[in-house]
Amino acid sequence: MASNSFGSLFRFTTWGESHGPAIGVVVDGCPARLPLSEADIQPFLDKRKPGQSSLTTQRQEADQVKILSGTFEGLTTGTPISLMIENTDQRSHDYSEIKDKFRPGHADYTYQAKYGIRDYRGGGRSSARETACRVAAGAVARKILGDSVTIRGAVVQIGEHIVDRSEWNWGEVNRNPVFSPNAKAATFWQNYLEEIRKGGLSVGAVVEVHASGVPAGWGDPVYEKLDSEIARAMMSINAVKGVEIGSGFAAAALTGAAAADEIRKGHDGKPTFLSNHSGGVLGGISTGQDIVVRFALKPTSSILTPRQTIDKGGENTDIVTKGRHDPCVGIRAVPVGEAMLACVLVDAMLRQRAIQG
Amino acid sequence: MASNSFGSLFRFTTWGESHGPAIGVVVDGCPARLPLSEADIQPFLDKRKPGQSSLTTQRQEADQVKILSGTFEGLTTGTPISLMIENTDQRSHDYSEIKDKFRPGHADYTYQAKYGIRDYRGGGRSSARETACRVAAGAVARKILGDSVTIRGAVVQIGEHIVDRSEWNWGEVNRNPVFSPNAKAATFWQNYLEEIRKGGLSVGAVVEVHASGVPAGWGDPVYEKLDSEIARAMMSINAVKGVEIGSGFAAAALTGAAAADEIRKGHDGKPTFLSNHSGGVLGGISTGQDIVVRFALKPTSSILTPRQTIDKGGENTDIVTKGRHDPCVGIRAVPVGEAMLACVLVDAMLRQRAIQG
Amino acid sequence: MASNSFGSLFRFTTWGESHGPAIGVVVDGCPARLPLSEADIQPFLDKRKPGQSSLTTQRQEADQVKILSGTFEGLTTGTPISLMIENTDQRSHDYSEIKDKFRPGHADYTYQAKYGIRDYRGGGRSSARETACRVAAGAVARKILGDSVTIRGAVVQIGEHIVDRSEWNWGEVNRNPVFSPNAKAATFWQNYLEEIRKGGLSVGAVVEVHASGVPAGWGDPVYEKLDSEIARAMMSINAVKGVEIGSGFAAAALTGAAAADEIRKGHDGKPTFLSNHSGGVLGGISTGQDIVVRFALKPTSSILTPRQTIDKGGENTDIVTKGRHDPCVGIRAVPVGEAMLACVLVDAMLRQRAIQG
Amino acid sequence: MASNSFGSLFRFTTWGESHGPAIGVVVDGCPARLPLSEADIQPFLDKRKPGQSSLTTQRQEADQVKILSGTFEGLTTGTPISLMIENTDQRSHDYSEIKDKFRPGHADYTYQAKYGIRDYRGGGRSSARETACRVAAGAVARKILGDSVTIRGAVVQIGEHIVDRSEWNWGEVNRNPVFSPNAKAATFWQNYLEEIRKGGLSVGAVVEVHASGVPAGWGDPVYEKLDSEIARAMMSINAVKGVEIGSGFAAAALTGAAAADEIRKGHDGKPTFLSNHSGGVLGGISTGQDIVVRFALKPTSSILTPRQTIDKGGENTDIVTKGRHDPCVGIRAVPVGEAMLACVLVDAMLRQRAIQG
Repeated sequence: MASNSFGSLFRFTTWGESHGPAIGVVVDGCPARLPLSEADIQPFLDKRKPGQSSLTTQRQEADQVKILSGTFEGLTTGTPISLMIENTDQRSHDYSEIKDKFRPGHADYTYQAKYGIRDYRGGGRSSARETACRVAAGAVARKILGDSVTIRGAVVQIGEHIVDRSEWNWGEVNRNPVFSPNAKAATFWQNYLEEIRKGGLSVGAVVEVHASGVPAGWGDPVYEKLDSEIARAMMSINAVKGVEIGSGFAAAALTGAAAADEIRKGHDGKPTFLSNHSGGVLGGISTGQDIVVRFALKPTSSILTPRQTIDKGGENTDIVTKGRHDPCVGIRAVPVGEAMLACVLVDAMLRQRAIQG
Repeated sequence: MASNSFGSLFRFTTWGESHGPAIGVVVDGCPARLPLSEADIQPFLDKRKPGQSSLTTQRQEADQVKILSGTFEGLTTGTPISLMIENTDQRSHDYSEIKDKFRPGHADYTYQAKYGIRDYRGGGRSSARETACRVAAGAVARKILGDSVTIRGAVVQIGEHIVDRSEWNWGEVNRNPVFSPNAKAATFWQNYLEEIRKGGLSVGAVVEVHASGVPAGWGDPVYEKLDSEIARAMMSINAVKGVEIGSGFAAAALTGAAAADEIRKGHDGKPTFLSNHSGGVLGGISTGQDIVVRFALKPTSSILTPRQTIDKGGENTDIVTKGRHDPCVGIRAVPVGEAMLACVLVDAMLRQRAIQG
Repeated sequence: MASNSFGSLFRFTTWGESHGPAIGVVVDGCPARLPLSEADIQPFLDKRKPGQSSLTTQRQEADQVKILSGTFEGLTTGTPISLMIENTDQRSHDYSEIKDKFRPGHADYTYQAKYGIRDYRGGGRSSARETACRVAAGAVARKILGDSVTIRGAVVQIGEHIVDRSEWNWGEVNRNPVFSPNAKAATFWQNYLEEIRKGGLSVGAVVEVHASGVPAGWGDPVYEKLDSEIARAMMSINAVKGVEIGSGFAAAALTGAAAADEIRKGHDGKPTFLSNHSGGVLGGISTGQDIVVRFALKPTSSILTPRQTIDKGGENTDIVTKGRHDPCVGIRAVPVGEAMLACVLVDAMLRQRAIQG
Repeated sequence: MASNSFGSLFRFTTWGESHGPAIGVVVDGCPARLPLSEADIQPFLDKRKPGQSSLTTQRQEADQVKILSGTFEGLTTGTPISLMIENTDQRSHDYSEIKDKFRPGHADYTYQAKYGIRDYRGGGRSSARETACRVAAGAVARKILGDSVTIRGAVVQIGEHIVDRSEWNWGEVNRNPVFSPNAKAATFWQNYLEEIRKGGLSVGAVVEVHASGVPAGWGDPVYEKLDSEIARAMMSINAVKGVEIGSGFAAAALTGAAAADEIRKGHDGKPTFLSNHSGGVLGGISTGQDIVVRFALKPTSSILTPRQTIDKGGENTDIVTKGRHDPCVGIRAVPVGEAMLACVLVDAMLRQRAIQG
């Protein structure tokens, strides 16, 4: 009942519009005595930040985070952590022409329908700029999870071009601006996106995020299943239209014999699974295998091609979006998806602690 | 923080195990003075109920619902509506051999890991039997939504076999036992599933649910987006591994020009969209178009093929599941998906009322 | 947002009307592997149950609780525990004359104003019969708290007659039907109430509940302070009009020097407080001292004295309540207050576990 | 499960420490298109602000509020409203000597016990400075409630000195620095407090808040009763030890005949109550009469009298609190209590709208 908040025991609340003075997030429920400074958060924001290559929006934002509360002498105190990022490069004038028109595929029309008012500058609250706050919250979540849980994501599809999984290399992901886990795809995608950008077009993408080191037993059946919470988290990211866990939609075509991840006693005496169709979740509870989630992002509809639409008066008109935008919003969604998964997992961890005693 | 509850203003809580004396649901937040009797709920339970054809589990359950509270002289009173369904055909003996083994692909292992105990009889709380309670809650939700919103679902894929959408007929869905919107697919799927069943196998499925008549403006950005809540709702259904809205994963391969649903002034002066890639949701808020959601269900892993697993002591063993099960659990998920969508929508409706004043 | 539910990690939901077929409670969030059977719950219900002496309503209810889910082979499983109590002695005809009139001091008028309908039989949902469900939930909470926390309550005032605290004896409380911690007051109060009853009158009461053995550190500032949650819990009990912690309202008249509970190093090296004006809570967090809460209950307005009121049509009329009622509803509130405190504490305990790791 | 948040449909989250760079509040759920600027909020902050007379702490804070999000061209947009107040006069050095000692009657010890760390400067998060954020949220709540609901509070007791209710004058309250509804008491209390202050002492107080114009039907039984939510709200205010509604604790001594507020048909045909023992709430739902709530505040324990305590190492020591403090914290609690009541009421209003359709 607080639609700008996410999580239960670890709960964050975001605020701010694309072209207001600042955006921010209040993180509640962080355990005390964790070392935390801006330096723990900034690298994740830098990964998401726009303007880093020609393949993302040319808006220049420092995205410098400030901690306003919740720490004392470098440690968290258990009180709410308020994080703020000032907006610096807003160029509101870019958006003046869309003031009275609804961009197709955007939230312009629905915000107007719901609220009878909208801050049209840069998408206002519906801007992907809000995701910076998720990334900041996710950085805090990672500190709580600690080193035993590793969360990392990659782009696995851009437009129609799917990565070759046989040459997956996590080390490669941070070496290219398109978060590709495969050097060949990285080069191909960059060239492809350069053309998309020049043509004033956009394409969609699929992002995959893994969490390793999650023990068996996290997640709460029935309506707060670990995968339900993950699905909700990912679907709440701007432009996401689909979420799947493990084999996902492909599971529909499997037989029960193929889909069941068989279990063996491992060398260390612990259970080992022979496959991971489940994506690390069974019955809403983690299995101890990697959590594997994929989500699809639609192409941004902020493009140079004129599209038919209506204006605020309901009359027919055309629109061309001239603002600074990403040819593929999916790229910058990688750190956002990682952050959301971190937040879901830390909540599940805290809840499991509570009932284990 | 109540993992057996769903929703906010319209909120239901389910309880009960597959082989306990009964299962039930408490529906809180239903507005007063709605006509409600068992006869409003029973038809939906009958649609989901097992044992209706050879293609679903042979467990025979009357699934007779009783209203224990919340109505007076045939009308709801605004107080919680307690609904109970007694379990009658439990045959606990069928499950005795799996008492000490974990069925691969089931929640056996994860419940044990989480709780250190599990009611192994028929899957206990993780049984799909729980979904009867969702269907009952959904029937109440439909009463609140009224006639202006129509919710209906169909199976669109069984195993590898996808329905031909060019011959979609909603009227057909309730005329065949596999909820096919196409008579040809209905026949094909029935023959196919009959073979699967005889072979002791199982396959997955994809279900699609539509809601028509939802006005623009329902749903709450940012973390309780209408599509986030739908994703969470569907992913919480047993065996679901993926959820998508509108074009879903296919949106990744679209260009921005193709993906943007253009808008025109309609004959009645109201906005008309030229396509529905968005699936009726933009920025987490309904557009007024049909809400379109699809979800994929994995095949049940209760099959006659022996699978490798471990026992409670961690030692290697094999397992064959002899209980009564569905060759395709996806079929009976149609009324469940409809119910969950109804519950999400009624909550969004009530919340929109609150802020509209 | 679920007004028939209470708690967060330990959360219960109640349902049922005074004159429906049954009442019940679903307890969610109970940790697994606790021994639990009806025998753990029944004694607390028996303490609250009506008809035990001439000083409480003559309604005869067995108040026999049934566990419908959530346990397996005598242990909790971590799944929701559904508890049901059938209504057996309803005598609906007693209430027929108040069908169209509002009893002053009752919820008749407000339920009608809110919902436009009310189940007038025995007060429907607003009946104190609902508190049996709280007592049942509290019994589960006590099992989780274990032996280290002791919760016990007593009546400290009936009408104008306040107990003499200098002769407080917890052992006495369960030896008299008025829950007096002092034998002399017990006798006096019984005679007094007998007269009240004969006169068809009623009086109010003050109940005090203590929790011993609560360690320092439970409770969550700022808006879910331990004392906030206690205040909310007690104020939600039927007829309660005031709640205070420690010195309570008397603290207003104290000086800061007197009100501060000084601290000394105890013989065991642990902190010892020289007084307990705080009632065991400072800054919303437990101090390790006894939690001390008092709450005041108004007299029931179901009395034989005719009172002026209006009917459903808004016209002036008189009313005499002839149903079976308690001369002092405060008496039976003792087990209810204990139960609510147990529920608040177990929730705080689970939440503290979560952040302590 | 977010202990720094309050409310459901109208929900605010506060953050910040007494001596951090700023404090703030994020208000979620405010309906759109309400005129809102800093000028709507500042007057309420000014009422609470310290340093206005010799009777409150001499800390000098401008308490200037800034709106960082949620409005556009002077109107609310339905998105979260972020309000920030910078801390300007912190004087951290004042607190250096209490770094390693626990002030009796303060939250020092319990924060340390709970979190293992505390920001000792000015009480950190447990400082009454946090209440400025409540007042800011309350100002937004008042805008939503509109002119039909009037909320106003007064001090009714300071130390042992209770106001004479026969000369109650709401107009007087804002004409004296002690929020007295009676000019005589105002003079008496000021002289009394001046002496208390000079002696380095402190006393407690009782505050009473009324809400007029609340229609019948607000509030949600059973566990979110209007009075439960009010009790929780008031008890969450720093130093509050007791809360009562209507006749409150005095109701215990009443007979049922006296306590029942009789009802008559009014001149306008609407129900009129002949008394208001209920304080405007029956069965957790508003009656349409004035909501009347009182709460007691203990004296601050920051006093010049040396008190016995222990240090962080657990050893015995003494303490004198030399910081700047209020001789009676109850005075500044008036605008805080008003704000909390406004927030509870607006939430109830929105919830009632939702179910009324």
